[in-house]
Amino acid sequence: HYSAKGYSSDRIFAPYSVYKGKAAFQLTPCLPTFTKLDSGALVVDRRGSIMMSFVPAVGERKYDWEKRQIFALSATEVGSLIAIGPQDSCEFFHDPSMKSSNAGQVRKSLSIKPHSSGYFVSLTVVNSVLNTKDNFSVPVTTAEFSVMKTACSFALPHIMGWDRLTNQKSSETVSFQPNR
Amino acid sequence: HYSAKGYSSDRIFAPYSVYKGKAAFQLTPCLPTFTKLDSGALVVDRRGSIMMSFVPAVGERKYDWEKRQIFALSATEVGSLIAIGPQDSCEFFHDPSMKSSNAGQVRKSLSIKPHSSGYFVSLTVVNSVLNTKDNFSVPVTTAEFSVMKTACSFALPHIMGWDRLTNQKSSETVSFQPNR
Amino acid sequence: HYSAKGYSSDRIFAPYSVYKGKAAFQLTPCLPTFTKLDSGALVVDRRGSIMMSFVPAVGERKYDWEKRQIFALSATEVGSLIAIGPQDSCEFFHDPSMKSSNAGQVRKSLSIKPHSSGYFVSLTVVNSVLNTKDNFSVPVTTAEFSVMKTACSFALPHIMGWDRLTNQKSSETVSFQPNR
Amino acid sequence: HYSAKGYSSDRIFAPYSVYKGKAAFQLTPCLPTFTKLDSGALVVDRRGSIMMSFVPAVGERKYDWEKRQIFALSATEVGSLIAIGPQDSCEFFHDPSMKSSNAGQVRKSLSIKPHSSGYFVSLTVVNSVLNTKDNFSVPVTTAEFSVMKTACSFALPHIMGWDRLTNQKSSETVSFQPNR
Repeated sequence: HYSAKGYSSDRIFAPYSVYKGKAAFQLTPCLPTFTKLDSGALVVDRRGSIMMSFVPAVGERKYDWEKRQIFALSATEVGSLIAIGPQDSCEFFHDPSMKSSNAGQVRKSLSIKPHSSGYFVSLTVVNSVLNTKDNFSVPVTTAEFSVMKTACSFALPHIMGWDRLTNQKSSETVSFQPNR
Repeated sequence: HYSAKGYSSDRIFAPYSVYKGKAAFQLTPCLPTFTKLDSGALVVDRRGSIMMSFVPAVGERKYDWEKRQIFALSATEVGSLIAIGPQDSCEFFHDPSMKSSNAGQVRKSLSIKPHSSGYFVSLTVVNSVLNTKDNFSVPVTTAEFSVMKTACSFALPHIMGWDRLTNQKSSETVSFQPNR
Repeated sequence: HYSAKGYSSDRIFAPYSVYKGKAAFQLTPCLPTFTKLDSGALVVDRRGSIMMSFVPAVGERKYDWEKRQIFALSATEVGSLIAIGPQDSCEFFHDPSMKSSNAGQVRKSLSIKPHSSGYFVSLTVVNSVLNTKDNFSVPVTTAEFSVMKTACSFALPHIMGWDRLTNQKSSETVSFQPNR
Repeated sequence: HYSAKGYSSDRIFAPYSVYKGKAAFQLTPCLPTFTKLDSGALVVDRRGSIMMSFVPAVGERKYDWEKRQIFALSATEVGSLIAIGPQDSCEFFHDPSMKSSNAGQVRKSLSIKPHSSGYFVSLTVVNSVLNTKDNFSVPVTTAEFSVMKTACSFALPHIMGWDRLTNQKSSETVSFQPNR
C-alpha cells in the first residue's frame, strides 16, 4: 500500500483552516516515518510534526496558493502552543538549511501573540538570496485557538509515534494462574 | 456496507441526553464524509459536526419528538463550548438556507449562559415564512456540562477527520540501518 | 465470541486499586451493551458506567472480598468527579431497587470530600431490612486522584458509547472530483 | 508474533528525548503484560510504567549510554507528574530490591523541582555495596514539560491496561426490539 518514495498512496486531506481577510493558514498533522532494523524492531526515522501552511489573500475569500509558505511545528513547539496562557506569547525560529552550507540564507519565524479576544498567529520568511520578505498575520479567535489546542493535544502522541507504542498488543504469558 | 445515499447502513445511536422539566436535548457526533480523488487521496467532502436536537416536554418525562429542532455545531463552535469558563456565555447563529434565495427565512440561535450552578442551554428558531418562533431552554448542571466538555473534546478530532490522518499507518522505509 | 447471557467470554481485568489501612477500592470501566434493530442500527441497551468496588481491611494488606459493596458511577456522576476542584466535595445517592416494590430498602451514598492533601472517598450502604450499615472510607492522595480523573476522562466517551460512533468508518461518496 | 520470553519481536522505539548540556533523559511507555486464566479472562500480570532513562554527557551532544540509569514511573507517579502545578515539586523513591534480602543496597530518587521557566528533573542513584553515587540533573523548559504531561496523560490509560478494557467489543443482545 506504500509507494517506493515512502509516502502513503492513499493520503487523506483534512486540514484545520482559518481563513481571514489578509491571509489564511492550515494545520495538518504529519506522522513520523519508521525504519525497520534487522532485529525486526522499528525506530523513528523522520520525526512527525504539525505542518502549518500560510497563504496571502488576493481578493475576497481568494488566496494565492502559489505563494504558500510552510512551517513544521516540532513536538516541543506543539507543547509550547498547547501550554500557552491567555496573556502569553511565544516565537519559534527555523532555518530550512540548518547545518548545511546554505545555513542562514532563509530565516523563518512563527509568533503567537495575544490580542483582546484571541491571538495573532504570524509567519515571517526572510530570504537573503532572493532579497524577499514574506509576512502573514492571521487573527485567531478564542474558539479557533481552542480547536487548535485540542486538535494538537490529540495529535501530539501520534506525531511522537507513541500511538504505535500503545497500539501494539502487549505480550501475554501464561505462567501465572493463581486459581488453579 | 454503505448504502447508495452515502449513509452507513449499520448506524449506531448513543446520544448524550439531558432531560429537564420543560425541554430536553441530545448531543451526538456526526463524522465528516470523504471523497476519493483519482489519485487515490481522500479529501473531506462534508464537514463533521456535533448535532444538537431539542424537544419540548408535553407531560412528565414525555417529549414531543415531532417538534424536534436541530442545530449542528461546527468544529469552531465546539471549540468555543470546550473553552467556556464558569462565568462566560456564548451564542451562535445559523441560517439553514445561507447563500440561497431562501436566506433569512429561518434563523436559529443557540446560547449558553451561566446560572448559579451550571448553564442554561437554549435554542431559538424563528421562521418568518410560517411566522413561528420555537424556544427551548434546558438548565444544565456543572456535572452534565463536564460530560459535554469531555465528550466534545474527545469527538472534536473525529469530526475534523484528524483521527483518519493519525490512524493511517505511516510509511516505512528500509533505507537507514545503522547497525548493519 | 459472546456467551448467551450477553457477557464477553474473554473478559479483561485491569482495575485501578487504592489500598489503604482500613479499606480499599477498585475502579473499572463497564462498557454499554447495544441492541441491534431490524434496520441494522445499534442502540444503547444498558448504559455503561465506572464500577467502584469497596472492601474492608481485615489485617495488614488483607481485605475481605466477601464484604464487597459496589457503586456504579453514571456518565454524569463521572462528569462530576472529573470537574471537582481542590476544595470541592460531591455526594451521589443510589437505590438499587429504585422504581420497584423494594425501593428504599437499601440506600447507598458515595461521597468525595477534600482533606489537607487529597480527598476522602467514602461509601455508606444502609440496608433497612437486614438492619445493617456498612461504611468504607479511603483517603486518596492528590496523585491517586489525578490518576482517577485522567483514567475516568479517558473512559467517559467509551462508557457513553461514543467510541463506537467515531470508530465506524464514515461513508465515502465519489460524486465530487474537482480535479477531473 | 510473540517470542517465548514474553517480549514482542517487533518492538517499536519512539522515546521522547530531552538532551541538555550535562545529561539527557528519555521517556517511553511500557505496556502491562497479561496472563490468561483457565476461564479465558485476562488479568494484568506485570504492571505498565513510563520508563525514564538518564545518561551523562561526555562531550558536546555526546552521551555515555553505558552509564545509563533507569527509573520506572508507576501509574500513581505518572498521576503526580501530570497534576504538578507551576510552583510545585515532587519526589519519588524506589528500591529495586524491595522486599528481597538485598533491600536497601540501592536507593533511587527522582525529583521534579521548579525553576524560573520550567523544572529540574533529577535522578540520584546510591549504591551502598559499590559505594557509588550517580547524579543526573536535566533542566526542562515549560514547552518540554508540556509535551511530557500531554504524552503521559495519553499513555496513562494504556499503562493501566484500560485501553484493553475499552477496545474489546461490548456484548450485543438482540432481546430488545421496540419497533417490532
